[in-house]
Amino acid sequence: MSKPALTNSLQDIISHAKEYGFVFPSSEIYDGLQAVYDYGQNGVELKNNLKTAWWKAMTQLHDNIVGIDAAIFMHPLTWKASGHVDGFNDPMIDNKDSKKRYRADQLLEGKAEEYAAAGQTEKAHTLLAEMGRLLGAEDLSGVRDLIIAENIVCPISKTANWTEVRQFNLMFSTQVGSVAEDSSLIYLRPETAQGIFVNFLNVQKSGRMKVPFGIAQIGKAFRNEIVARQFTFRMREFEQMEMQFFVRPGTEMEWYKEWKETRLKFHKAVGLPVEKLKFHDHEKLAHYANAAVDIEFEFPFGFREIEGIHSRTDFDLRNHQELSKKKQQYFDADLDENGKPFGNYIPYVVETSVGADRLFLATFCNAFTRETVGEGENEKERTYLKLHPALAPIKVAVLPLVKRDGLAEKGEAIAQSLKSSFRTVYDDGGAIGKRYTRQDLIGTPYCIAVDYQTMEDDTVTIRHRDTMEQERVSIRELKEKIGYQVSMERILENI
Amino acid sequence: MSKPALTNSLQDIISHAKEYGFVFPSSEIYDGLQAVYDYGQNGVELKNNLKTAWWKAMTQLHDNIVGIDAAIFMHPLTWKASGHVDGFNDPMIDNKDSKKRYRADQLLEGKAEEYAAAGQTEKAHTLLAEMGRLLGAEDLSGVRDLIIAENIVCPISKTANWTEVRQFNLMFSTQVGSVAEDSSLIYLRPETAQGIFVNFLNVQKSGRMKVPFGIAQIGKAFRNEIVARQFTFRMREFEQMEMQFFVRPGTEMEWYKEWKETRLKFHKAVGLPVEKLKFHDHEKLAHYANAAVDIEFEFPFGFREIEGIHSRTDFDLRNHQELSKKKQQYFDADLDENGKPFGNYIPYVVETSVGADRLFLATFCNAFTRETVGEGENEKERTYLKLHPALAPIKVAVLPLVKRDGLAEKGEAIAQSLKSSFRTVYDDGGAIGKRYTRQDLIGTPYCIAVDYQTMEDDTVTIRHRDTMEQERVSIRELKEKIGYQVSMERILENI
Repeated sequence: MSKPALTNSLQDIISHAKEYGFVFPSSEIYDGLQAVYDYGQNGVELKNNLKTAWWKAMTQLHDNIVGIDAAIFMHPLTWKASGHVDGFNDPMIDNKDSKKRYRADQLLEGKAEEYAAAGQTEKAHTLLAEMGRLLGAEDLSGVRDLIIAENIVCPISKTANWTEVRQFNLMFSTQVGSVAEDSSLIYLRPETAQGIFVNFLNVQKSGRMKVPFGIAQIGKAFRNEIVARQFTFRMREFEQMEMQFFVRPGTEMEWYKEWKETRLKFHKAVGLPVEKLKFHDHEKLAHYANAAVDIEFEFPFGFREIEGIHSRTDFDLRNHQELSKKKQQYFDADLDENGKPFGNYIPYVVETSVGADRLFLATFCNAFTRETVGEGENEKERTYLKLHPALAPIKVAVLPLVKRDGLAEKGEAIAQSLKSSFRTVYDDGGAIGKRYTRQDLIGTPYCIAVDYQTMEDDTVTIRHRDTMEQERVSIRELKEKIGYQVSMERILENI
Repeated sequence: MSKPALTNSLQDIISHAKEYGFVFPSSEIYDGLQAVYDYGQNGVELKNNLKTAWWKAMTQLHDNIVGIDAAIFMHPLTWKASGHVDGFNDPMIDNKDSKKRYRADQLLEGKAEEYAAAGQTEKAHTLLAEMGRLLGAEDLSGVRDLIIAENIVCPISKTANWTEVRQFNLMFSTQVGSVAEDSSLIYLRPETAQGIFVNFLNVQKSGRMKVPFGIAQIGKAFRNEIVARQFTFRMREFEQMEMQFFVRPGTEMEWYKEWKETRLKFHKAVGLPVEKLKFHDHEKLAHYANAAVDIEFEFPFGFREIEGIHSRTDFDLRNHQELSKKKQQYFDADLDENGKPFGNYIPYVVETSVGADRLFLATFCNAFTRETVGEGENEKERTYLKLHPALAPIKVAVLPLVKRDGLAEKGEAIAQSLKSSFRTVYDDGGAIGKRYTRQDLIGTPYCIAVDYQTMEDDTVTIRHRDTMEQERVSIRELKEKIGYQVSMERILENI
């Protein structure tokens, strides 16, 4: 019988992720690269499974959603049109003594948190409001004056010897082309969405898509974050899963509501519990949005965004039309209430945007379970990953009770027979209890034990990870019995 | 009855790829970005299916191969150790009149081809040998002298007014970090292999892997190619599928031979015909290799590499050990012929490296089929994609004969019932012949027609793409009948 699960810190999660091959610091032998991580042998499988679940939920469950895979490199005018060249900035300030750089807004927010912690909520609110006003007006010297007026000092030098506040663009850039006069500055995309917008008409026409329809994409994006922290939650290189849904202007709020609900269902279907999920409506909207909400998950460090759903209006397509001089219109042949076709328009867009690394981290944090099992002197702690079977890196481990008397060969043959259907490993190293534990630690849902009875009647036991219960089944039945349980179909049917 | 297929030019392929949503020029509304392409709604599915086939062939079929997903950003010392900072160069020369830049080696190779075409093979060979000698000795002014001695002129200005020859590094670089003194130059990885090498011990230890074992990875790589051409064959942003297999020194040639054969089987299993595949042994080896072979496919522009298999010795791990001062050794507990453990060593590596975009292009070129069907006045041209069913973007299209009399609703219900199992679309727009053609053009292996008999006895016809033959089956049987045919299992069982 198990007792309530123990709580886990982010440090527990990071340690487990590294020790069991889920996430490694990037280039660790060279002491790492800040805010960049590599997925290990189990992490990559879990992440790929999450990506596949999302991809199929979008492009397989919906006739009117198709995928694309646009390149990371795009024409630089793309980022002019999207507003990133001019507006994708953080306000930075340097301390002249320590030579350290800070985000000016974060210094002020820190001060506001101090006020709030000391019970001075009124003061905190006033400060934040003033900061918002100054940043909104792009009054950067006003921001600096506020930092000085609040007596904010550098945590390292302890001085208020500050430089001016400057805007720092978060896009990475590089030079493409070798011929001097041809070479040009291009950017690493800071979001995947624009790869969808610039391909809107290509997809609509070649795919004969009718509004409403969606285009989905999974891919890397890059942001030169000043302060990156909380493990894989905020990285300089990260992966997005975005779907832009093109709708008739005026219908966007219906679709926005619909997608809110559909996306919540997805997160439940991959195993995130409803009590750890919540909607967070944006009060202040981005310049391109007329409605926006985050789906937040309760990480060890609090509720944080894992997905954003935004009603983006026609902001992006309109700007691309203006800059490229190419019409970004759709002809809607459906009839309006007067019996006339709706005709040409630039569609409105409802975007659903998941941070793939954040969904990975949420899934991993949620699955990581430590509990006390047994009673009295048999009481011990048990750690396992309670992953949805379709997401687990390894679906089945085949474990012979002992290596001798033909059990090893039998086990290998069983593993071999399952391998083309789902990821199955064979392990005969060490006591069987230890081998069960090893699989628990990486979330393998089913362990198949081969014992002496197997040699007589071709049955094996299946041990279930979460309950540790065992059942006896015929080898013949294994593929079918387990196949459906570990299939993506099981997730898709719940969305 | 069909007649021999018509031959296709690369231009036919490119047009079809664009028109039917397989490959679009990147950022086309801004007139494109040279040597960068986007995958459209059908291209992304085909490419993902090829990636999945490779991934499963590596990590699911082999207990001793696991995957990782290392970041594109890596510590810059990685590329010092690998030799890319110092040696990943092309020799460039500029014409002072046209201001155009060329690869010096390609100018000389062009001249040698001219000689060969004119029957002067001896002269061609001598020129290539001399060029090889000069480049090997890094005698760049000798290379320039040779260009001038051979009277090579710029194809644009028609002059021999050349600059010096200089080395041009093919890596893209960018600045990471915002704090002036902390910011550093990093590279976009020019190959995925190093992400595997720097994680060698992390994976080996956390995964308890025993030599021989492999680490597989799929990911983007970037090269600032001077001359990029032949559609997606040579791009500045491209995707690799690499597997590094770590072996005991002295056993590498056995494994090299084994992987040659295994990889050839893979390409046959995904549908490339054996007569369009061949091995091409490298005569001149890279500095890190002691054996190397390409698997080449016959594109419309000739036999070209789609995969390289290299015996890389311990070059990479040894250099990383030296530069990082972190031991890159493995302890091999197996016993040698004297009964002693093999002990500590740096493993040797056999690499298999596929260009994912090249495999995509090979598969697409091979599948693209135009043939003449029918006789006499019924003779007409038919175009379809003969893709392996497991690779096809859409597995099944459900097509009601007509929209009325409940056939549409019946068709939609059938499509719905298949959707969580495999990618199924419903289409009721236009004459059924046109709808068949539409599916042929994107390679859908099965079209299900819903007709009046369906309404009576719950049977439908399945039309097979390649033969255009139809068979009548019960709706009940559809999922099982088609499910296996379109599954990755069918590919995996043939490797």
